[in-house]
Formats: sequence, structure tokens, C-alpha cells
Amino acid sequence: MALPPCDIDVTVCEVGLRDGLQMFDTLFPTEEKLAWIRTEAAAGVREIEVTSFVPPKLVPQFMDAQQVVEGALAIPGLTVLGLVPNMKGAERAIALGVHKLNFVMSVSRTHNLKNVRREREESLEDFRRIADLLRTLPEATRPKLLGGLSSALGCGYEGRIPVDDVVRYAAEYAAAGADEIMVADTVGYADPALVRAAFKAVMAEVGPLPVSAHFHDTRGLGLANVAAALDCGVRRFDASLAGLGGCQFVPRATGNIVMDDLCFMLDSMGMRTGVDLQKLLAVREIVARNLPATPLYGSLARAGLPVNYATH
Amino acid sequence: MALPPCDIDVTVCEVGLRDGLQMFDTLFPTEEKLAWIRTEAAAGVREIEVTSFVPPKLVPQFMDAQQVVEGALAIPGLTVLGLVPNMKGAERAIALGVHKLNFVMSVSRTHNLKNVRREREESLEDFRRIADLLRTLPEATRPKLLGGLSSALGCGYEGRIPVDDVVRYAAEYAAAGADEIMVADTVGYADPALVRAAFKAVMAEVGPLPVSAHFHDTRGLGLANVAAALDCGVRRFDASLAGLGGCQFVPRATGNIVMDDLCFMLDSMGMRTGVDLQKLLAVREIVARNLPATPLYGSLARAGLPVNYATH
Repeated sequence: MALPPCDIDVTVCEVGLRDGLQMFDTLFPTEEKLAWIRTEAAAGVREIEVTSFVPPKLVPQFMDAQQVVEGALAIPGLTVLGLVPNMKGAERAIALGVHKLNFVMSVSRTHNLKNVRREREESLEDFRRIADLLRTLPEATRPKLLGGLSSALGCGYEGRIPVDDVVRYAAEYAAAGADEIMVADTVGYADPALVRAAFKAVMAEVGPLPVSAHFHDTRGLGLANVAAALDCGVRRFDASLAGLGGCQFVPRATGNIVMDDLCFMLDSMGMRTGVDLQKLLAVREIVARNLPATPLYGSLARAGLPVNYATH
Repeated sequence: MALPPCDIDVTVCEVGLRDGLQMFDTLFPTEEKLAWIRTEAAAGVREIEVTSFVPPKLVPQFMDAQQVVEGALAIPGLTVLGLVPNMKGAERAIALGVHKLNFVMSVSRTHNLKNVRREREESLEDFRRIADLLRTLPEATRPKLLGGLSSALGCGYEGRIPVDDVVRYAAEYAAAGADEIMVADTVGYADPALVRAAFKAVMAEVGPLPVSAHFHDTRGLGLANVAAALDCGVRRFDASLAGLGGCQFVPRATGNIVMDDLCFMLDSMGMRTGVDLQKLLAVREIVARNLPATPLYGSLARAGLPVNYATH
């Protein structure tokens, strides 16, 4: 690392198996998904969003949700997440024992209509029903509920999104019983100044609830946005190995921030992620052999670690 | 832009013609260098480092320094910079009427020996002689003297560089009469936490002198480092169009931060650069046609401007 440890723990969550794979029609073999999950968990990544509980007929890539979740749940210490777009998805995820439900709605009305085919109020109503359902479960086995706000910092259809709207929907999630709020820059529109403004406002509104961040690197500002969010106190970030990702319902959306580069930046800043950088880089081979025609991103993979670099 | 203007002016300096071209053995035609300079100045870039006054027999790419400087000086409003590694280079630059001399020495002893073949004290001694020489010139025509600190945030040979060393050499430059200090992460080793620590320390030491920043994007952290430096009050940044760059004396050094992405980030943050982003992107064609085998970087060029983006 470049600086002494600063006693800050940061959680990174791998979303490549969901946000990365959702755009590929070719099925990534179930055993290879599990190899990816196991190897990345062994490299120290403690949260992985392993699948999406969208209807399998809409996105066949996730028709193996059950096997993938069951395999992931067998890995000690790993927090297993699944994306849920609605009540039905939540019921499937809960039945399988997923640890954390990532519920998504878009702050952009247009994107919500395209992505989950409903008005934002309908999405919110489902979120409230999911939260109610979770409260009926015994606390020991109750999954955590993450309220995700997609296209919160810009939208491929609507352009700029008012920060007030982000704050309003974050407050609705909190009131309904979210355990965590996720602000997502689904198409890579954010910049460090906007990140600072939006996260400060959301964090002031939802008080002690943790607020996490999901950035895309569409215009190269992904890690700059992470640094700005760190300044605001954000301590949990989504990323995808080799920067896989995008959204089939958003024009020109490109990949998530690169997990390997994110972990390098955090480590270099003296923060603790629990991730072994060399082991993490080695996981790219699993992605590469299954998606041979897909460009893999990542500056650390290209340049290697600095000379005399001391990880911690 | 994503946020309202924030009344902050930021100067960007194109260094691709020097830092970018120095690694190519093939000569970039003089007329094409001038087309690049003219077109980028017309896009609103107000400072361009147009050449290097290293011995032409060492780096033939810069044997057209005189014609390039003369052509650049004819462009109204443009500040013309030249890199000077020593007294002899400074004399050549002064004779041609260059507006700002970018003197370089490395904070890393090993890199200074490889790059300019002398001890740091010898470099400093030359810097003092150049400053003395400049003081003998009439103020109206006296070039500005920029004291550049290369490999200040990490070195491809030595690894980590102590912040105290950066501060010490910055203080020496200031005492000798520098008009500006430049802290350079020549090989892309910095992270936002190190940037903050180093720039705060240097700025505290050299007081009212402006401190500018030169970042490389070797491990993807270039723009995150810019954002951290902006927070410290840095208002001038080097960059190269399409991310050209590197250093033939540094193992694995890759490109400078991408000028087009830098300008987009600053504009998006509501800062004023004076640069027209679309016109700037168009300049890439000049680089592309002269370096057809060279990969050009840039996220903005790939993704385009956001929907409904309002530049200012």
C-alpha cells in the first residue's frame, strides 16, 4: 500500500454474475458461475450478487438461479445476494435462503417503465409488501433488504435526475423498512461533485441506515466517484470483475467499475477490503475462458502492481 | 453539465506533443504537430507543452523544436510550454521565446539518473542557474519557470517516495525562484489518499506559489487523483489527448490521463475550462491519422456525451 492502514473497512460486492452476465444471451455454464463465485470468495470478496430473480423466460441467463444460490450458500463466510425486481422475485429468493435481497427501482420514471415495466409507485408498493413479508420471518433467518435506486445520478432516457427525487425515494425505502440504501449510477452519468451532493443529501435523510454505491465507468469517472463517495462516508461498493456489465434497457450503458482496480485503489489508500489482489486478478481467467469474445477491462491487470508494493 | 457552475476556473495543459510523442521513434510530421496544436487551441485549450529541449540526437522526435515553437507562438492567446532538462535546454527555449519552461527533475534519485543522467543536486543547481538567468531578462518577455517534480508519488525503480522528499525539493524550487511547482506522478503510482497527503504538504510549504498536477492513468486512478487534487485546491492539470504518453526510461509507464475525459469531468462538475468538448474530441483524428498503430484511449470518445448534456 502507498499509505499506512487507516483503520477503515470497506466492503466490496461482486455484481458481475448479475449485472455483467444479464446482457449475454449465451448461457454462462452453471458450474463456471460457481467456480467464479468460489474463487472470488477465496480471494477475499465477502459479498457476491450471484443471480437475478427476474422471470427466467425474460432473461434465460438466470434460469439456473436455484443451483447457483445453493452452491454459493455452501461457501463459508460469503454473503449471497440476489436481485429482486418485484414481490414474486423476492418470494423465490427468500425460499432459497438468499442472505440479502437487492430490490431495484429506478428514480427515473422512464427507466423504471423500461426496466421493470411499472410505475415507480407500483415498485414502491411491492417493496413495502416485501418488507412486510420479511418482518413475519424469524429474525435468525430473515434476509436483509437492500433498497436500490437505479439511474439515480443520470438516465439514458431522461438525462439529469434531480437530487431531491433520489432523496425522496431513499426516504420511502427507509420508512418501509430497508436495511440499507443503494444509490446506483446505472449508466455512468455521475461526477465527483454530483456524487458528493447526492450522497450527502441521501445520508442526511436516511440517518443511521448504511448507504452504498453502485457506479458504472461509462465515461471514465467511476473510481473518481468512488473516492468522492468514500469522502462522504460510503463504505460499501458494487463492482464487477474486469468491468463486465451494462443494461440491455439503457442505451450506451457500459461496464461497472472494475473490481480489481477498485480493490487496488482502496488497498493503496490504506483501507481494508480483505481482498488478496493477486488472487483476485487470477479469477479473471474464469471470465475470460467463458466469454472469449468479450473485452475485459482493468488497468491493474494490464500494468501489474507497483514496484515494492506492500499489500495488507 | 451535471451541476450548476461553481465559479472555479481550471487550466488544462496538453502534454501529448511532448510526453506522448517522446516514446515514438517515428517522427510525427512538423505540420501535423502544428495542426494538432492549432486545432486543440481552437477547441479552447489554453496551455500546450509543444516540445522538449532535450538534445535532438537523443530524441530525434524533437529536432523540429524551433519550427513547432514558432508556429505555436503565432496562435493568439495560447501559452506555449517547452520541457527543459538542463541549462542548455533552457537557453534554447528562451531564445525561441517559449512562454513557460517546464524544468524537470525526479524526486526519485534513480529515475533522475536514468532520465536526465545526473544527481538531483546537479539538477537543482541547473534550476538555480536558469532562475538567475531569467531574472536578468526584461520582465515583459521573461518566460515563467515551472519547477517540475517527476516520479514524486512513486517510482518504477524505487517504489514509494517519501512525501518529505517531495516537500523538500518543492521548497528548493520555491527558494530558487520558481513561478509554479508541478507535482508529477510519472508512472501512475498515486492514489487519492496519497495525492491528498502530498499536495497538502507541498502547498503548505510553498505558500502562495501555485501547485499543479501531472497524473498518469497507469492503474486507472488518474481521474480519482485529479478529484482529490481539486479538493486540495489544485487548479492546473496536465493531460494528453487520447491518453498518449509514457516514459521510455520507466518500466511499464503508460499514458497520461486522457485530456478529453479530464475536461468532461471538470465540465460535468461545473468547473470552467474554456474547452469545447465536441471540438476537443475532433482533434483525436489528427493523432489517429499520424499514429495509426497506436491505441487511443478515452471513455468520452467511446460513450459520447450524456443525454441532454448541457455544457457551459
